[in-house]
Amino acid sequence: MKGAILKSTQEPLVLEEAKFENQNIDYVEVKLYSAALNHRDLWITKGQYAGIKFPIILGSDGCGHFKGEDVVLNPSLEWGPDERVQGPSYQVLGLPTHGTFAESIWIHPDQLFPKPPHLNNLEAAALPLAGLTAYRVLFSRCGLTPGKKVLVTGAGGGVALFAIQFALAIGSEVWVTSGSNEKLEKVKAMGAAGGVNYRNAGWDQQLKVLTGGFDIIIDSAAGDSFAALIGLCRPGAAIGLYGGTLGKMNQLVPQVLFWKQISIHGSTMGTAREFAAMLELVAKYQIHPVIDSVFSLEEVNQALKRMEEGSQFGKIVLKIAD
Amino acid sequence: MKGAILKSTQEPLVLEEAKFENQNIDYVEVKLYSAALNHRDLWITKGQYAGIKFPIILGSDGCGHFKGEDVVLNPSLEWGPDERVQGPSYQVLGLPTHGTFAESIWIHPDQLFPKPPHLNNLEAAALPLAGLTAYRVLFSRCGLTPGKKVLVTGAGGGVALFAIQFALAIGSEVWVTSGSNEKLEKVKAMGAAGGVNYRNAGWDQQLKVLTGGFDIIIDSAAGDSFAALIGLCRPGAAIGLYGGTLGKMNQLVPQVLFWKQISIHGSTMGTAREFAAMLELVAKYQIHPVIDSVFSLEEVNQALKRMEEGSQFGKIVLKIAD
Repeated sequence: MKGAILKSTQEPLVLEEAKFENQNIDYVEVKLYSAALNHRDLWITKGQYAGIKFPIILGSDGCGHFKGEDVVLNPSLEWGPDERVQGPSYQVLGLPTHGTFAESIWIHPDQLFPKPPHLNNLEAAALPLAGLTAYRVLFSRCGLTPGKKVLVTGAGGGVALFAIQFALAIGSEVWVTSGSNEKLEKVKAMGAAGGVNYRNAGWDQQLKVLTGGFDIIIDSAAGDSFAALIGLCRPGAAIGLYGGTLGKMNQLVPQVLFWKQISIHGSTMGTAREFAAMLELVAKYQIHPVIDSVFSLEEVNQALKRMEEGSQFGKIVLKIAD
Repeated sequence: MKGAILKSTQEPLVLEEAKFENQNIDYVEVKLYSAALNHRDLWITKGQYAGIKFPIILGSDGCGHFKGEDVVLNPSLEWGPDERVQGPSYQVLGLPTHGTFAESIWIHPDQLFPKPPHLNNLEAAALPLAGLTAYRVLFSRCGLTPGKKVLVTGAGGGVALFAIQFALAIGSEVWVTSGSNEKLEKVKAMGAAGGVNYRNAGWDQQLKVLTGGFDIIIDSAAGDSFAALIGLCRPGAAIGLYGGTLGKMNQLVPQVLFWKQISIHGSTMGTAREFAAMLELVAKYQIHPVIDSVFSLEEVNQALKRMEEGSQFGKIVLKIAD
């Protein structure tokens, strides 16, 4: 089978015949229809990730077929027994084990879940990592229930869009921020109540006036704008943090945190139980992942370039086979 | 009845006959045996608190008797229906309503709870505000269960000492920080596993080497040392924050928060249900509050001075009547 192999951080992925051994006697081979990109893949190609090894087939998201059934792959490997946190053996599919940018993958059958029937193969590949991350941070960590007022920052990213879709599906009032007015319009067309451009000075005060504040805020930027999110919390609010693209958080006011009984929950990935619950939610509400663009496996480096440019809205998908 | 009245922030409390009207038809008069000080009282005398009015009898902690029964007073007034957070009518006893630095107090009978029988009147007055705050942040917010490794910073303060006692009572391994080696020794004598002096450079690394990190951290300092607490978190840890004496928090690393699934919970005061549960815990484990010093009601300004000096270990109590 062919796979898109990263051989060093100095060169693009190379699509070639890969003869990696089946490293575990319990693993099965899954023929892949499709895969999808995550920022993780991009960071690994640039050497900005812990534990990089070569050669490695990247890719955490995949949809394929096994024993006559269409399946999606849970990218959380070896979570361990504690629902609260992944254990020391935890891995994300696609490093250190080989991932989904390939014609097939060897994987433990416990990672395979039936594809939600309403999704095509490209949509299904868009779902796993981002959908799982959004599910855990929204529901397990921040305790989202219907009727809440929700803010999702950085609308356009894969996790952010699933968070928006999931929150809308169960009946939340969803607001967003983005650095692009075009993306704000797209999210409003999906059903969001509104949004503001974080490049405008006073965006947080604008949101506060428009909404009165939020019960749940989902963020992956952190950085200096995080303090503004605390100011946008209603009493009893929860902030879910699943990334840190803007770096360290500063100038957080403790009195606001404790007087308003605010919680900040770091969150990443999720358990197999959460993966199954996420698929169930997607099927129940007939949610279709937002796809930004589709590339062939041969075009994987163009797909990575698309992600690097940062203008995508939704998931960047690789079509591998029909 | 006599009360210690604050008439302005320019002068000490004045003990004199107070003829305040019973402002609510449901209120009852409780004769007070004893009261206790909190930092809140000190900050009000200095004008460093929101909504100060004059004249006002300060004091949130009280023990007295009503209809032949010894009672302690729940200082949380009008919490409201939401367990997660106090509502807009919420008040702490002792501003804007008159407090416990007086021979008696008019208060709603729902605020009265039977005094734990094993406590004397001075110990009972030491319990309410600090015990309630410690209970909520430890149990309701951080989910403490037996067998956890707990760090309490700033050992010596009222809430910190109750947090230490409560966590020890249910079988936690408790570590502390303090700026005083003498206080560290006192806490070890109470059963803490150990502690470090935060005035020593590298105190956090020292703690990490000694303990491997913590499941629950209880802090009221915030400020620049808060980032070190995040570094002391075990995977899945919770930090409970109930104060902010060192001001804003800076340099928090988002990647540590989300990869370790850490939660930060702001917390203040507590509900009537939590107050009752706290009294039950104190009775069940026969916990005796740590008393730093006892003053008469006439000596209330000396008691406030003792608090201002900051060297107390445990609660500063006012003895009002036998």
